[in-house]
Amino acid sequence: MNKIEHIGIAVKNFHFSVPIFESILNTKCYKKEKVVSEKVNTAFFQVGESKIELLESTEEDGVIAKFIEKKGEGLHHIAFDVDDIEAEMKRLKKEGFTLLNEIPKTGADNKLVCFLHPKGTNGVLIELCQEIRK
Amino acid sequence: MNKIEHIGIAVKNFHFSVPIFESILNTKCYKKEKVVSEKVNTAFFQVGESKIELLESTEEDGVIAKFIEKKGEGLHHIAFDVDDIEAEMKRLKKEGFTLLNEIPKTGADNKLVCFLHPKGTNGVLIELCQEIRK
Repeated sequence: MNKIEHIGIAVKNFHFSVPIFESILNTKCYKKEKVVSEKVNTAFFQVGESKIELLESTEEDGVIAKFIEKKGEGLHHIAFDVDDIEAEMKRLKKEGFTLLNEIPKTGADNKLVCFLHPKGTNGVLIELCQEIRK
Repeated sequence: MNKIEHIGIAVKNFHFSVPIFESILNTKCYKKEKVVSEKVNTAFFQVGESKIELLESTEEDGVIAKFIEKKGEGLHHIAFDVDDIEAEMKRLKKEGFTLLNEIPKTGADNKLVCFLHPKGTNGVLIELCQEIRK
């Protein structure tokens, strides 16, 4: 793992939450992006080499809406930057971790991503991220 | 905020969880430290410019034990590195955030720390960290 790529935070409403995180981090949100397949809007803030990614559900049955219903707003996942996502997936599978997707999928911010099942990671939803090379 | 200093993760037992995070991160835990005032043991892993900090309660009535009882193991807090903690505390207070301690306190890993009340930060427990200069 090269670095923390981003921390995902589930929020109800960007209208309230983007200004809150702009105040805390003392920096402007530099990008918003909708990820249709995940039913979320994302808003990004840069902090050092990492990002804070706010997540707002676009649908009532979206994964973020369900998370907030169950646990409330707050920390949702941690994403690590990797050079070769397929090699990392293979390594972690061999170590006994369960992958939530067997093939890397396209996430926000020009990334290939894979999630690990939180049952094997002390309840932490962990994402692997690899920059898509063009 | 200069960078994500660390991500705090609440776990029940280092005996199981330290090897899990060594596997995920593919790096050894480089330090363990007890913080008596907080009733926790901490275990650190370096990832890029940031750290992962596992937190294990040392007492049944500790804050981490209570967190796990209520929410289960998982992401607990996010800590940002700052140059001048008192200036940041003053700035955030002025912006309307509630500080959980009005005077910086001594945390793990040679740091002065202050927490923001999660009610004002979309449920995210946020820590400010400043390296103690000797």
